[in-house]
Amino acid sequence: MKSGTVAVIFVSKRTAVDPEGYMKAAEEMGKAAARFPGYCGIHSARGADGVGITVSYWSSDEAARAWKADAAHSAIREQGRATWYEWYELIVAQVTRDYRWKREELGSE
Amino acid sequence: MKSGTVAVIFVSKRTAVDPEGYMKAAEEMGKAAARFPGYCGIHSARGADGVGITVSYWSSDEAARAWKADAAHSAIREQGRATWYEWYELIVAQVTRDYRWKREELGSE
Repeated sequence: MKSGTVAVIFVSKRTAVDPEGYMKAAEEMGKAAARFPGYCGIHSARGADGVGITVSYWSSDEAARAWKADAAHSAIREQGRATWYEWYELIVAQVTRDYRWKREELGSE
Repeated sequence: MKSGTVAVIFVSKRTAVDPEGYMKAAEEMGKAAARFPGYCGIHSARGADGVGITVSYWSSDEAARAWKADAAHSAIREQGRATWYEWYELIVAQVTRDYRWKREELGSE
């Protein structure tokens, strides 16, 4: 992730309500974000306790704010508050560095 | 989360190996991090696909680097590479702002 990239850390707790509607909306939002100008990638995980973290990465703060203001995204956010989330927290941060590590393939033994 | 707080975003994919050892180590590391100078909090989630995200928050970049260099933490990292992880990615970012939302309790109906 390039230094200066904006990371939007979205931490949320799901209600038990409407899992199908939520999954469908999450998939649609993921696709819409990926088409949105300035999108640099996404990481997402949700555990059995209903707590999930999605980090989306944006080329600039302006891009992150534009995605926040997007009409379809805003409509889904309202639905999220009405139905899908117990609580959420959103933390915006600017990337300074990153590291990657990957297991080496040793072939079959 | 105060502006200037350092967020360390750790994204990892677990192997299927040694779940008990991993759980024990993860719990110990969580406790050790919480005792470490400059610790400001943690968010964590891991899904059924083995992909997890842990975001730890630190008062400064120096605090985040000191935790990285901690001996017990470094030993666990080696064990993680040898045994528990397929891959991981670590992104360091500086918090600029945050928002919170929580469902209002309406009482029982």
